[in-house]
Amino acid sequence: MTRYRYNTATTLDGFLADDTDSLDWLLKQDFDENGPGNFGAFMAGVGAQVMGATTYEWILDHEKGAWTYTAPTFVFTHRDLQPVAENITMVSGEPADHRQAIEAAAGEKDVWMVGGGDLAAAFQAAGMLDEVIVSIAPVTLGSGRPLLSAPLDLRLEECDRNGEFLVARYAVVGPLGSR
Amino acid sequence: MTRYRYNTATTLDGFLADDTDSLDWLLKQDFDENGPGNFGAFMAGVGAQVMGATTYEWILDHEKGAWTYTAPTFVFTHRDLQPVAENITMVSGEPADHRQAIEAAAGEKDVWMVGGGDLAAAFQAAGMLDEVIVSIAPVTLGSGRPLLSAPLDLRLEECDRNGEFLVARYAVVGPLGSR
Repeated sequence: MTRYRYNTATTLDGFLADDTDSLDWLLKQDFDENGPGNFGAFMAGVGAQVMGATTYEWILDHEKGAWTYTAPTFVFTHRDLQPVAENITMVSGEPADHRQAIEAAAGEKDVWMVGGGDLAAAFQAAGMLDEVIVSIAPVTLGSGRPLLSAPLDLRLEECDRNGEFLVARYAVVGPLGSR
Repeated sequence: MTRYRYNTATTLDGFLADDTDSLDWLLKQDFDENGPGNFGAFMAGVGAQVMGATTYEWILDHEKGAWTYTAPTFVFTHRDLQPVAENITMVSGEPADHRQAIEAAAGEKDVWMVGGGDLAAAFQAAGMLDEVIVSIAPVTLGSGRPLLSAPLDLRLEECDRNGEFLVARYAVVGPLGSR
């Protein structure tokens, strides 16, 4: 069965980005690309990815328009955004409306929930979020884009240190109060 | 020199309590009282403690009015709150105004910054925050009382797992961009 895995960097106080969507606080940190929680090992299991419009635009801005992801990508947006690559599909509506297409695209592999926190919460509400995997940077921002906009019970499955990051993998148990 | 140590439980998304100041999400978690990040070892080094009015009132509510702390306590408030024990002093104004009294009370020991996140940020701005020690519960709340209301650079000093919690100790480097 397809696993939906939300894998993201976050600050210690639970923000994905500051109010101006800057990730300067993240990109300056030490991280061993072959160490615990490394991205290569995760990406090897990814067959499709889903993200919100803000995340999509951030990637394009920061990669200067280049799109390096090879997995089929679904961008949830209410706006009229243009796909910059053939493997990108713009979608709107509820996660469940697109479940069949997403899982068909993923094949035997997992779905990477790239973010942001509102979309991750919408996927969880639809029963389409199995894991939350975080790389916690040694930073607080005080305000910004929220990690996950819903009250949830998680279960800590793994944790370790990688460079300046705490890395942790959680199973999603359900809405807060599920256990 | 007196160390100011902010030691608190938090959710994975950086909240100290939900919007109604409930800690139900916290109190149901497993934690080994003798394990890593345990509170007894920390408290043995505490000579004085500081907290905001919301935190003070929460303790009184949840302890049914009992005050079990033996260290001198400074409660920062703009309201007319009554101390329920002889070792509690109500103060207002800036942290620096009370630095001498707090450090005299702590003696050779540390100051425990109990919370909340706004007071911790005010202390940091005054140069009175050396460490942030967190026990991260496997929960998201989506909204609530913020862990630390300021953009800061930290340095990860120690991390471990205790029961369902990630426990981590950070040194406060300074405002975000300090390194």
